[in-house]
Amino acid sequence: MAGEPPQDVQHPHADAAMARPGGRTARVREAVIDATIAELSEVGYAALRVDAVAARAGVNKTTIYRRWGTKVGLVSMALIERRGRLVPPADTGTLRGDLIGLLKEIRLGLKVPWVAALQREAGPRTAANADLYELLDRFWSARFKVSGVIFERAVERGELPAGTDPGFLLEMISGPLYFHWLMLGRPLDDDFLERMADFTLHGAQAGPPAAG
Amino acid sequence: MAGEPPQDVQHPHADAAMARPGGRTARVREAVIDATIAELSEVGYAALRVDAVAARAGVNKTTIYRRWGTKVGLVSMALIERRGRLVPPADTGTLRGDLIGLLKEIRLGLKVPWVAALQREAGPRTAANADLYELLDRFWSARFKVSGVIFERAVERGELPAGTDPGFLLEMISGPLYFHWLMLGRPLDDDFLERMADFTLHGAQAGPPAAG
Repeated sequence: MAGEPPQDVQHPHADAAMARPGGRTARVREAVIDATIAELSEVGYAALRVDAVAARAGVNKTTIYRRWGTKVGLVSMALIERRGRLVPPADTGTLRGDLIGLLKEIRLGLKVPWVAALQREAGPRTAANADLYELLDRFWSARFKVSGVIFERAVERGELPAGTDPGFLLEMISGPLYFHWLMLGRPLDDDFLERMADFTLHGAQAGPPAAG
Repeated sequence: MAGEPPQDVQHPHADAAMARPGGRTARVREAVIDATIAELSEVGYAALRVDAVAARAGVNKTTIYRRWGTKVGLVSMALIERRGRLVPPADTGTLRGDLIGLLKEIRLGLKVPWVAALQREAGPRTAANADLYELLDRFWSARFKVSGVIFERAVERGELPAGTDPGFLLEMISGPLYFHWLMLGRPLDDDFLERMADFTLHGAQAGPPAAG
């Protein structure tokens, strides 16, 4: 046990992975995640087929169904594994800086082909993708929880009034970005992101709605 | 000619329509629009088939292809005919009132099943619906042109600074509404719309970006 490598060390060599208990399971898992992401990048979510993922990963289709259930389960697992480790936005010292940082982070994510394909095809809720709603709820809830810290910091700094609602403000700043990119099909250039940040800065100072 | 009814009177009775030159053409057109909208409401855009529209309208499929070309042409025609007559938002006397009026108008549109189906399925730009981009560009351009008057009036009233960019502000107010409804799957209640209006009111006062 003393000579055992730390659990988080990666073993690119298959034999090394197989030598450990759980090595094959972990290897199959990684191969399936890679194959899922490659398929998402190529054909998107709607056209993704579990048997194409299985063929690409070199595993039996039944292995995938047994472990992850359905296409939704498979994509959820890939999404959580590769995008689940959300890092709180860096503290730039000002709300304006933090807002621009957040917008640039979202833009960076949307430059990853499989993330963009997933957002375009599976992000909007349609009758056809109702099986994804639960995953989407978890995704946005996790994302908002981590990103909301920006507005909490701004309240602490005295830049925003107490009682500010981070969830509402995250909708106000994320909404136009997705609308611009997804619905209008326009580029997310720096100038646009900065104008959005300034707009949000002023809008947020409206504060919570007056009681009554 | 003196006894001719005004052009805008509708003839629900087929014989009356057939008695006029162009009567059959107009009747087929109305039947095809009705059938397109009924199919959109039932199956959405992605699953809509031209032969199902033809069968429902009681016309030959080739008639539709000859007159409107493709599925995109057909849906464009239905959209322009039934949603193309955009009316400028009513002047409530204040920017806040106008913003709430605009948001409620958009919400009302999204309560129409075929409009909602079209926005959910065909609004977001994917690789699969690239044939719709031109239609979407025309749709948003027309919509923004008509709705932008809200911000022009606010500048005239002195509520917003000169140089205000109506297109940018329309993105800022429409974006969160579509994000909330389409991506988060949440209801558009009055409270949310009013908070959005207050946020936009303050955000818009940030004015155009400083030169340099």
